Amino acid sequence: MPNPTAAILVIGDEILSGRTREGNAHYLAAELSRIGVDLREVRIVPDDHATIVAAVRALSDLADHVFTSGGIGPTHDDITADAVGAAFGAGVGVREDARALLAAHYKTRGVELNEARLRMARIPEGATLIDNPVSIAPGFTLGNVHVMAGVPAVFQAMVASVLPLITGGRPLLSQTLRVLRPEGEVAEPLGRIAAEHPGVTMGSYPFQSNGAYGTNLVVRGPEAAEVSAAMTALAAAFPETTA
Amino acid sequence: MPNPTAAILVIGDEILSGRTREGNAHYLAAELSRIGVDLREVRIVPDDHATIVAAVRALSDLADHVFTSGGIGPTHDDITADAVGAAFGAGVGVREDARALLAAHYKTRGVELNEARLRMARIPEGATLIDNPVSIAPGFTLGNVHVMAGVPAVFQAMVASVLPLITGGRPLLSQTLRVLRPEGEVAEPLGRIAAEHPGVTMGSYPFQSNGAYGTNLVVRGPEAAEVSAAMTALAAAFPETTA
Repeated sequence: MPNPTAAILVIGDEILSGRTREGNAHYLAAELSRIGVDLREVRIVPDDHATIVAAVRALSDLADHVFTSGGIGPTHDDITADAVGAAFGAGVGVREDARALLAAHYKTRGVELNEARLRMARIPEGATLIDNPVSIAPGFTLGNVHVMAGVPAVFQAMVASVLPLITGGRPLLSQTLRVLRPEGEVAEPLGRIAAEHPGVTMGSYPFQSNGAYGTNLVVRGPEAAEVSAAMTALAAAFPETTA
Repeated sequence: MPNPTAAILVIGDEILSGRTREGNAHYLAAELSRIGVDLREVRIVPDDHATIVAAVRALSDLADHVFTSGGIGPTHDDITADAVGAAFGAGVGVREDARALLAAHYKTRGVELNEARLRMARIPEGATLIDNPVSIAPGFTLGNVHVMAGVPAVFQAMVASVLPLITGGRPLLSQTLRVLRPEGEVAEPLGRIAAEHPGVTMGSYPFQSNGAYGTNLVVRGPEAAEVSAAMTALAAAFPETTA
């Protein structure tokens, strides 16, 4: 059976303006590899309702699971819940269980649950809440879309809440061979060995180190025996490998 | 006149597997802001021909300029030139000017221009070459798509070659106010001030520092006077601001 698939949708003007370097997609990509979910696409879009709606629909069709990052806070630019609701034709309003979570949290701290904070209890109809042990305001899952906060610590906590609910496939195993030869010289044997090992994929990533050209060769696949066999073939073809 | 628009397409299994953290899109996003080009989308896709073709077409329709990163090296997994050619219905073959660049480069170094390296001279019909002062193998521009290498030093050199040819718009100016209040408390005045300043956009980005909750308020817009007026209003609303 093929692995389940995923897509990540990052929402935020601050990424597209170059102000903030995106890190949540990178974090989640590694987590998905670990549990055997194939990440098919990452898309970064601005804080624009129509754009988010279109992206949610496209990615929801593309992959088994969509993870969104950003835009579920208390301010006027937090428009993700409404856009995800609209993508599924679901109404969005303050939900009692989410409101109760926030009320209890802020009461303990002597902080007012004002109108802005109450926005974080606005959840599309039919969604299930995603636990947020860091700052309480929940994410939610609607259809195959998991809506999570953009603050990295909260995003990671929500990922930890969601991933155990996902039935993964076979984890993608990978091995890397560091070869001190330029990519143009490893290309021919690499391509030949790749063709001889159809059960794995092989990537080559050139690097420069102390003025010398080298190439990292990466073998990826779900079967340990096939990955190892391919790696053995590579190691034999490039005996000058260094650690 | 509205600013020209851009999209970035990052091609590479190594990003989606979580092995490599993407940095080229972040770099280019800041460069585009600087010259007044609005970045509309970043998309990361795997080394898959049909997926790259579809993404090139979609982004070429979406934005005035598309920048791609990755997949133009000498190995079997470098399939970007063929996919971009296919997206535009252009044939792809070894081009004499690109071949001559490579031949001269490798001759100086006493390195063979073998079949794998010659792949880097495969350019779609009708494209113009993008200069690569780092490692010679050129990128190319076909239609509104600028095809560049994924190695960061080469990507950045190619960006430096391409951007002067693009007529920018008004640079996006931004100012940030660091407020030592949680996002839930700044939300109401922020939303009101944002509504009073339609010529700018305002974003809020919560942070935690030494256990205290704070919010960075970012004002963005093309007009310095409008950005400053909005920032003045924010500073008056949040007098406890710290540097």
